Amino acid sequence: MKKLIDRIEDIVDDACEGLMLAHPDLVRFNREPRFIARAAATRSGKVALVSGGGAGHEPLHGGYVGFGMLDAACPGEVFTSPVPDQMEAAARSVHAGSGVLFIVKNYTGDVMNFELAAELLAADGIEVRSLIVADDVAVRDSTWTAGRRGVGATVFVEKIAGAAAERGASLTEVERIATKVAANSRSMGVALTSCTVPAKGSPTFELGDGDIEMGVGIHGEPGRERMALRAASDIVEMLTTPVIEDLELKRGERAIVMTNGMGSTPLIELYIAHRKVAHMLRDSGITAERTLVGNYITSLDMQGCSVSLLRADAELLELWDAPVHTAGLRWGM
Amino acid sequence: MKKLIDRIEDIVDDACEGLMLAHPDLVRFNREPRFIARAAATRSGKVALVSGGGAGHEPLHGGYVGFGMLDAACPGEVFTSPVPDQMEAAARSVHAGSGVLFIVKNYTGDVMNFELAAELLAADGIEVRSLIVADDVAVRDSTWTAGRRGVGATVFVEKIAGAAAERGASLTEVERIATKVAANSRSMGVALTSCTVPAKGSPTFELGDGDIEMGVGIHGEPGRERMALRAASDIVEMLTTPVIEDLELKRGERAIVMTNGMGSTPLIELYIAHRKVAHMLRDSGITAERTLVGNYITSLDMQGCSVSLLRADAELLELWDAPVHTAGLRWGM
Repeated sequence: MKKLIDRIEDIVDDACEGLMLAHPDLVRFNREPRFIARAAATRSGKVALVSGGGAGHEPLHGGYVGFGMLDAACPGEVFTSPVPDQMEAAARSVHAGSGVLFIVKNYTGDVMNFELAAELLAADGIEVRSLIVADDVAVRDSTWTAGRRGVGATVFVEKIAGAAAERGASLTEVERIATKVAANSRSMGVALTSCTVPAKGSPTFELGDGDIEMGVGIHGEPGRERMALRAASDIVEMLTTPVIEDLELKRGERAIVMTNGMGSTPLIELYIAHRKVAHMLRDSGITAERTLVGNYITSLDMQGCSVSLLRADAELLELWDAPVHTAGLRWGM
Repeated sequence: MKKLIDRIEDIVDDACEGLMLAHPDLVRFNREPRFIARAAATRSGKVALVSGGGAGHEPLHGGYVGFGMLDAACPGEVFTSPVPDQMEAAARSVHAGSGVLFIVKNYTGDVMNFELAAELLAADGIEVRSLIVADDVAVRDSTWTAGRRGVGATVFVEKIAGAAAERGASLTEVERIATKVAANSRSMGVALTSCTVPAKGSPTFELGDGDIEMGVGIHGEPGRERMALRAASDIVEMLTTPVIEDLELKRGERAIVMTNGMGSTPLIELYIAHRKVAHMLRDSGITAERTLVGNYITSLDMQGCSVSLLRADAELLELWDAPVHTAGLRWGM
């Protein structure tokens, strides 16, 4: 295992500290219990957005803390759910009197721990709603998931619900927007290589030199099929077709598009992959209104990519375009 | 070789097309001769900035074409200089009556080909100046370089000279700013793994499972020393100390900092590396005024990182903060 790390047990703390040192104007790092929050206090009356999950998916979630997105993020150990103490402390720290929305990727541990934190906060009079993201069309009932896994749509939800909260929308309204985004997003991914969890020190799964895992999860969970490596266009077609079909995207509709790298995929390859995504959308009569190409939700050192689509209307596009300033996404400021 | 590509001979064209399809509002792609230019015509009277070099370093340079940075970029084949035809056509396409600045990384082929293009343009009455970037402190007279290699400082030069040009500075003034940035920047990199050039299909150099290449070049050129893998903090110290020393950065001075990934390094590791960079600057009494952590100048699928520092003053910071909108760097708009 070759990694740029110090002590294995410090990886997540060290990375959080590095994020904070790179962006002291944006975020602060609370070491115990561990969370990343905006450097500035939440504006009184603003709905607070809190997310979290296992580390290893950077920039998710700490890289999305800042103006126009999250108020706080709780990183667990690598690929391990954070504990309720973290969500509770983070929520208390950023709550500004108008409630908290938890944005939770659909993994059993995350869902359970965010639920426990919500109960603790509710008992103390802080209103919490939870939005579960479950957009991965590859499989149902995966290794750590009942139902569909939550993946790339999380980026869409955090950006767009974050914009609504920033404008002063109520908790009910922010929840409505987040629900709308999650309901209109789908994703699917592929692995060319496994990832290696540092504490384990060896690849999460075995993949032959000529093989790929089609439909892989962001922790290396099995996908739909192990198959032979083929041309990028063929691989991307196998990712994009189920996403378009499951979303029932029709000719004339509009989409926000993300061609996402799994962590170790060079950008030159992501642009080659995106070319095919764009061709397929054009050929299907779907307008790619906005596009992200890069590493937005990763799986440590996995090579591969995922394709996420969000059915967009004027409301979602306007919130997408609203100013955002985080380590991972920035525009308009 | 596992890569997300279609035909090897189409890699650069396919990636350029993908970039254009992702950002049709920002860039256009001229296939023959190959260059990326801003989607919008250069404003009359604006100095045009043109860069280029071998592909495989994305987002450099095509990802830095757009408002506030480059007017055009000429990608060669992977790790291969573009030809003078490309620079000439790109420069003609974006020249707006006030001259052209070529930004050239110090590799023999690039320097020669940009020089030939400048002569062709000058013969036609288009004034061209060239700025050579040569910031890599690791070694002198490397595989394809007389003197020092040009690496991360290129990002600083393109951003800051781009901001000056955007404001209407004259060619002489843009050249002065670019020269100042290049003179005040230094970098050094490390490889944990080799990269694989697609046309070759096997790693560029051999590196044992427990070894790293300290001072590596962005094409896998030999560095200062092959050594055993060690803690990230130790590795980063070996990168950052020579950069600070060569730049003669003193206590009380200010810097713009880039902790850059080589292409396949997960962001969690880059933040761990950056933590040490930030600690070293703090301990040296140097203020990190602005920071980038991510993949800004890459080497295909190489794992590793580089550290770049720019001695900053009020003039450079103000130009750094000016609005920029490219695929690779964006703020203020």
